[in-house]
Amino acid sequence: MAFQITPEYIKALRQHLEDKNFSGLESLLLDLHAADVAEIAQSLDAEQAYALMQTLGPERFSDVIVYFDEERRGEILENYTGKEIAQVVLDNMDTDDAADLISELPEDKKREVLSNLEDLDLAKDLADLLTHAEGTAGALMATELVKVNENWTVLHCVREMRRQAEDVEVVHAVYVVDDNDVLLGSLSLKKLLTTSTRTPISEVFERKVRSVTSTTEDQEVARIMKKYDLFVIPVVDELGRLLGRITLDDVVDVIQEEADSNYQLMSGLSDEVTNDDGLFDMTRARLPWLLVGLLGGVLTSTVIARNESELILIPQIAFFMPLIAAMGGNVGVQSSAIVVQAIANSTLQKNLWTRLRRELGVGLFNGLICALVILLYSWGMGHGLLFATTVGGSLLAVILFASLFGTAIPWVLDHYGVDPALATGPFITTTNDVLGLSIYFAIANALL
Amino acid sequence: MAFQITPEYIKALRQHLEDKNFSGLESLLLDLHAADVAEIAQSLDAEQAYALMQTLGPERFSDVIVYFDEERRGEILENYTGKEIAQVVLDNMDTDDAADLISELPEDKKREVLSNLEDLDLAKDLADLLTHAEGTAGALMATELVKVNENWTVLHCVREMRRQAEDVEVVHAVYVVDDNDVLLGSLSLKKLLTTSTRTPISEVFERKVRSVTSTTEDQEVARIMKKYDLFVIPVVDELGRLLGRITLDDVVDVIQEEADSNYQLMSGLSDEVTNDDGLFDMTRARLPWLLVGLLGGVLTSTVIARNESELILIPQIAFFMPLIAAMGGNVGVQSSAIVVQAIANSTLQKNLWTRLRRELGVGLFNGLICALVILLYSWGMGHGLLFATTVGGSLLAVILFASLFGTAIPWVLDHYGVDPALATGPFITTTNDVLGLSIYFAIANALL
Repeated sequence: MAFQITPEYIKALRQHLEDKNFSGLESLLLDLHAADVAEIAQSLDAEQAYALMQTLGPERFSDVIVYFDEERRGEILENYTGKEIAQVVLDNMDTDDAADLISELPEDKKREVLSNLEDLDLAKDLADLLTHAEGTAGALMATELVKVNENWTVLHCVREMRRQAEDVEVVHAVYVVDDNDVLLGSLSLKKLLTTSTRTPISEVFERKVRSVTSTTEDQEVARIMKKYDLFVIPVVDELGRLLGRITLDDVVDVIQEEADSNYQLMSGLSDEVTNDDGLFDMTRARLPWLLVGLLGGVLTSTVIARNESELILIPQIAFFMPLIAAMGGNVGVQSSAIVVQAIANSTLQKNLWTRLRRELGVGLFNGLICALVILLYSWGMGHGLLFATTVGGSLLAVILFASLFGTAIPWVLDHYGVDPALATGPFITTTNDVLGLSIYFAIANALL
Repeated sequence: MAFQITPEYIKALRQHLEDKNFSGLESLLLDLHAADVAEIAQSLDAEQAYALMQTLGPERFSDVIVYFDEERRGEILENYTGKEIAQVVLDNMDTDDAADLISELPEDKKREVLSNLEDLDLAKDLADLLTHAEGTAGALMATELVKVNENWTVLHCVREMRRQAEDVEVVHAVYVVDDNDVLLGSLSLKKLLTTSTRTPISEVFERKVRSVTSTTEDQEVARIMKKYDLFVIPVVDELGRLLGRITLDDVVDVIQEEADSNYQLMSGLSDEVTNDDGLFDMTRARLPWLLVGLLGGVLTSTVIARNESELILIPQIAFFMPLIAAMGGNVGVQSSAIVVQAIANSTLQKNLWTRLRRELGVGLFNGLICALVILLYSWGMGHGLLFATTVGGSLLAVILFASLFGTAIPWVLDHYGVDPALATGPFITTTNDVLGLSIYFAIANALL
C-alpha cells in the first residue's frame, strides 16, 4: 500500500514542471501523502523543487516542508520573507516542527518571523521553545497537549477536551494539572470512555506519571521511552509545571540519528554526511580521519625502519607484517564494539576488571587458534619452525594486547565523557597497527 | 524521575533474597515499574531471579517476564509446566508478547500451553499469530484492537468501543470494517469526541488508511511508519481483512535491532552477542571473521613473498607496506559506509555510474593531499625523490581503487540480496590490504 516513486512518475512530473503545466502537476500530487511529495521534491534540483512547492496551497506547503532535510528547507525558505513564513508557513504546523524550522533561519529572519505572528500565544510558545538547547527534551517537545484541572468532573473534562482538541491533531494523553499548572498525573481515554460523567477527575486519574524535565538529554528521553514502552512523555520545568510533551515518533528520529552517527564514527566519517553532499563536505568529513590513518602509517614506518637490519637479515619477517597489523586491528574493533554496545544499552553491569579478564579469556582462545593456524601455514611454507613460532607467538601476543586495549579504550573514553564509539573507528585500528608491529619485532629480535 | 538501580538497592535486595525475607522483598519492589523489576532480575543469577519472580503475583509476573531477554525468560519458564504458563503467565499479556513467549518454548511445551488455554478465542488468535514467519509484519502484530462496522452510528460505536476497550490496554486507533471484516478506514478519537452521536459512521470515518499485509518485512513496516509518522498501522491479509495492528514501540525495537546488527557486522561479530554471553558464544561470533582476516593476511604474505627480490634490493619498500594497506582499508570503509547508509535510508536515487564518478572525484582530491603529505615526508626522511614518488603515487592509486571498490561492493551485494553492511566489515579491509600491496609492488617494480 506504500506509494512507490517510479522513474516514469518523476519523468511525467519533470515534464509538467518544464511545461509549467501546473494543473497537471497538481493532479499528479493530489492524492499523495505530504511525506511522498517531500521525497519527490528532495529528488529534484532546488529550482524545480521551488516551482513544485509554489503549486501547493498554504496548508499543504506547511505539511510538506516539515519533511524536508534542513538544507532543502533552507533553499526553499530563502524565497520567502519572514512575514510570509509567519503567515503562511507556520499555519497548521505543530509547535515542535515550527520551532525547528525557525531555529534554522538566519538570526534577522528569525526575529522577523516571530514578530509577524498574529497568534500571540503561538509567538510566545515558539519563543519559549527556541530557548531550549539542542539535544534536550525542551528542544524535542511540542506544546500541543490536552490538559484538565484536577477539580473538574469527567463531563467538564470532555467538554474542555473537545474545545482543546480543535488545536490538537491527535490526542495522545490527557494530563491532569493543579491550579498552578503543576503536573499531577494523567487520564486514560479508556477511563474517560468508561466512567460516569459526574465523577470528579480527582477520583479517576492515574497519579503515577513518568515525566522528564526540559533539560533532560534527548538520548535519555529515548532510553526512558524505549524502556517503559511510552508513546508520549510529558515535559515539566524544575517546578514540575507542565511545559509540553514528546511523542515516540520524535524519539525514533533521535534513535536513528544516534545509530547513523555511531556508524559514521566507526567508518571514519567525522561529520554528518549524506549521499548528496558536495565534494567539499565529503572531503571535510573524510580527510581528518585519513590524516589520522596517515600519521599511524608514518609511525609504523618508523617502527619498521628502526628494525631495518633485522629485515635485511631475515626478509621473510616482512611477509607477515601486514597480517600482524591487520589482525590487531580486527580484534581491537571486535572487543571495542562489544563494550561500546554495552555502554549504549546501559548493560555494562560488571566492572572493568571482570570484563578485562573475560576478554583475556576469549582473546587467549581465539589467539591460540589463529596462532596455531599461522604457525602451521608458515612452517608448511618452509620458513622453519623457529620463524613459524615467532609469527604464531607474535600473533597470539598481538591478539591478547588488542583484546585488552579494545576493551579498556572505550571504557576510558566514556569515563572522560568522550563518545566511546570513537574507539571502534580508525583510531583503534591505527593504534593497533603500531602496537602490533612493535610486538612482532620485539619477539623477532628476541627469538631469531 | 526515572528509577535508578543503585548498588545499595541491589545489595539490600540480595540480602532479602538470601534471608528469604519475602515481605521485605515485596516492599522493595512494590512501587517499581515492571521494566525496572525485569532489569533488576536480569542482573541477578538465574536462581536468584527465579526466587524473585516467585514473590510476584501472577499479573505482575506476566508484566515483568515480557521485559526479559529471551535467554533469561527461558531459564525462568523452565520451572513451570505448560499448564501453569497457560493459566498464570499468559493472563494479562498482550497477544504479540504472548506469541513471542510461546514461540520461544520447546515444541512439546508450546502445544501443552496452547491446549491448556481456557479462553478458546485467545488460543485461536495465538495459534494464528504463531504461523507468521519471523521478521514479518504478522510476527510483530498484536490482535488487540478496537473495530467498528461501517453501518453503525457514532453512538453504537461508542457503546461497542467501551465493551471492546475492556480487553485493550490503550486505544491507539479505531478501525472501520465491512461485514466481511475487510478494512475500510479508520476513525479518529477526536472525530468521535466532536461528532453528534446519531451520525452514521460511514459519514465521518477516514477512508484513506495506510496498512501492511502480514507478509510485509518488518524493516519495511519500520520504514513506512517512520516515513509517515505513524503510531500504529493495521495489518491485513491478502483479501484486505483486518488481522491486527503494529504499534510504534515494537517498531522501535526493530530499528534498534537493525542498528545493533549493522554495528556488529561492521565490527566483525557474526552473531548477536551481548556483554554477558559465555566464552563459547563469544568465540563463535568472533572467530569466523578473524579467520577471514587471517586468510587475507596469508594472501598479503604471498604478494610480498613474490616480491622478495625487490624487497632485498630496496628494504625501504617494507617501511610503507602497512601504511599503504591500512589506508586502502580506511578509504574503502568510508566509501562503503556512505553507500550502505544511502541504501538503508533509501536515499540512493542516483545510479551507480554517477556515484562512482563522484567517489572518484572525492578520492582523487583526498588521495592527492595524502599522497603529497607522504611524498614530502619520505623525501624529507632522505629516501630519495624517486622512492618518495613511488610511495606517494602508490598511495594515490590505492585510495582511488579503494574508493571505487568501496562504492561498488555494497551496491553489488545489495543487488544480489546480501546485507550491504557486510561490506563495511573486515571483508573490505582485508580485500583492500591485498589490493593495496599489489598496487604498491607493481608501481615499485615499474619505477625503482
